[in-house]
Amino acid sequence: MFVNKNFLSLKESYLFTEVVSRTEVYKKKNVGKEIINLGVGDVKKALPKVIIEAIKNAVDEMGDEKTFRGYSPETGYNFLKEEIIKNEYMNFEFDLDEIFISDGIAADIGNILDLFDKNNVVGICDPVYPEYLDTNVMDGREIIFLDCVAENNFCPEVENVKKKLDLIYICNPNNPTGIGMNKDKLQRWIDYANENQSVVLYDGAYEKFISHGNLDDNKNNIPHSVYELNGAKECAIEFRSFSKSAGFTGLRCGYTVVPKNLVREKINLNKLWTRRQCTKTNGVSYIVQRGAQAVFSSGGEKECMENIRYYMENAKIIFNGLKNIGFKVFGGQDAPYVWFEIPEKYSCWEWFDFLLNNFGIVGTPGIGFGKNGERYFRFSAFGKREDVLLGIDRLKRYI
Amino acid sequence: MFVNKNFLSLKESYLFTEVVSRTEVYKKKNVGKEIINLGVGDVKKALPKVIIEAIKNAVDEMGDEKTFRGYSPETGYNFLKEEIIKNEYMNFEFDLDEIFISDGIAADIGNILDLFDKNNVVGICDPVYPEYLDTNVMDGREIIFLDCVAENNFCPEVENVKKKLDLIYICNPNNPTGIGMNKDKLQRWIDYANENQSVVLYDGAYEKFISHGNLDDNKNNIPHSVYELNGAKECAIEFRSFSKSAGFTGLRCGYTVVPKNLVREKINLNKLWTRRQCTKTNGVSYIVQRGAQAVFSSGGEKECMENIRYYMENAKIIFNGLKNIGFKVFGGQDAPYVWFEIPEKYSCWEWFDFLLNNFGIVGTPGIGFGKNGERYFRFSAFGKREDVLLGIDRLKRYI
Repeated sequence: MFVNKNFLSLKESYLFTEVVSRTEVYKKKNVGKEIINLGVGDVKKALPKVIIEAIKNAVDEMGDEKTFRGYSPETGYNFLKEEIIKNEYMNFEFDLDEIFISDGIAADIGNILDLFDKNNVVGICDPVYPEYLDTNVMDGREIIFLDCVAENNFCPEVENVKKKLDLIYICNPNNPTGIGMNKDKLQRWIDYANENQSVVLYDGAYEKFISHGNLDDNKNNIPHSVYELNGAKECAIEFRSFSKSAGFTGLRCGYTVVPKNLVREKINLNKLWTRRQCTKTNGVSYIVQRGAQAVFSSGGEKECMENIRYYMENAKIIFNGLKNIGFKVFGGQDAPYVWFEIPEKYSCWEWFDFLLNNFGIVGTPGIGFGKNGERYFRFSAFGKREDVLLGIDRLKRYI
Repeated sequence: MFVNKNFLSLKESYLFTEVVSRTEVYKKKNVGKEIINLGVGDVKKALPKVIIEAIKNAVDEMGDEKTFRGYSPETGYNFLKEEIIKNEYMNFEFDLDEIFISDGIAADIGNILDLFDKNNVVGICDPVYPEYLDTNVMDGREIIFLDCVAENNFCPEVENVKKKLDLIYICNPNNPTGIGMNKDKLQRWIDYANENQSVVLYDGAYEKFISHGNLDDNKNNIPHSVYELNGAKECAIEFRSFSKSAGFTGLRCGYTVVPKNLVREKINLNKLWTRRQCTKTNGVSYIVQRGAQAVFSSGGEKECMENIRYYMENAKIIFNGLKNIGFKVFGGQDAPYVWFEIPEKYSCWEWFDFLLNNFGIVGTPGIGFGKNGERYFRFSAFGKREDVLLGIDRLKRYI
């Protein structure tokens, strides 16, 4: 009996688990002291009323034998897929069977690796959301890191790739830097993928937070969807979620687009993913899918946008606050994350402990997202306004 | 770029997809004709009221900023784990971190394979629920089939194993045969696993339907949990679900028990599974977990048991009906499935078409569960009473 020993190559604990555990230690030592959490990127605003009503109606259906629903279609209900195509992909002509409802990006972006051989070479941004790296370590694939540093505006350049990449992760706008890759640069990645028969795994978790979208100038335009790029249907899988855009982190719903045009080694990846999902899942909760459908109602869209504007106002307050204190600050305009340089005398986790112990502020160490994050720190804008204001106010004492 | 070519070794379509598609063809040709569905094992009764109320209360919490919940713990909320330990594993002394809340068995029993090397040899019952086979084919593992035939009462015997097995799937009571393996026989499998350092993957989806449980006679006693067996904590992972027992097929909730005593190659599998789940999932929907918690309330338990009795009464009607018509019939006493021999002149799918075209009855071909199923057919007892009665009545014309 052989255990998958690739697990032994993983770092012992997952970034956010470590953040939580250090915070718990502090709390036990400092009972009664108020903590300002700008760490884990989790939403705080209540769910919009129209979503609440939609879910409750669906729950009532489940309580009546005449309207009860058992197994949902493994790839999701058409009522939700139709709204997604109509509202999110209007100009891209996707069929219903190219949209796969999921319980969030975390599951799908890990599980998609089932489709790919262990011998592929994987390109992963550094820094970025740690799941891409960890799930590939579990499978034992070779990883090539793509530097995201101040010199390239934290967006990797395809021209610097030294080894042929088979799988390329792009999180756009990027978590943790909060910076979006412009259409010009992204097009070069798409062209690379098509020339080299690579597959782009495109994480669009934060696309609703983009402020520089739909611009004519491709050097400033941050695409909302990878399918705005020429040739993307032939090389890219897009992952989306209602988590951050509609407050679904606790409800669990997202979707994945696998275009039928995406063919590698003469194998249609849409067909493979369909087979994987129909075998290894039994679909997403019906009542949650009804909630997601309500996101696209006029009331749902309005309330969700209000919440997004609220969080982006937080981001602005954090960005300007840190800048005025004297930090070098990045991001915060196209995603709800602010990325800033830490003072030279601290290591990344030392800075974490310093902020926690002296200001009661929890942030996320950049090093948790990759080695290029060592000199940086992430603040999330998902907090409550009063916490954000109080946090910045406390930090002024740092000067 | 290399696709995982193990997918090409899978049969083109999944069993239940084929059943649905043949049924759709029939429906289009026979508009207005009523179909009696004894095929896919999906529940029909409405959710108990106390569960409905619990979910609606949780939804209301999500609509209020003061009680809103974001990300749930990746392995599930303690409020649900505590109920599971108290009600399902009272005598087994499990800790909270040995229970993992899932969105159903389908996901976890497929995903658990992440922990195991591709070079393990896998023992799978024939016939059985097809996911075990398909997910291992996707990974390219060697499969050894364990014969479940009339001669061994459809429960495989460890004494007949010809090659050392590393992973052993046991679905108890078994789907599709509806037959439970007794404690005596199962103990020999557990002993084998401990002697050979194998891991038993124990699917207990139907344990609530067992009528021969808690007996002193180990030749007749069907265990509710694998942990009733000596040494099971050292070798077995148990998968459970609220799907069939509480009508959650559309809601999605289950749980997996990975004991901390389960160590292979000096590696603790509980720790590995925790790492896998914390990386590749973001937990199960909060509102669904609240619904699952209500399953254990006195009202919830009562209503769920009433539904189970209703389905098992269906099973009895199907069993006796088929027997009186003259079929050789099995199962139906410890699981909501009845398994019967088909007439010699038909192949399995021919019999499917014959039943559909002549009686408007949909069942599931035994061959879909393995080659030993070729001469058998499965009827599910999850239908409505009137459909079950009508179906048996129509079949009387077969004589």
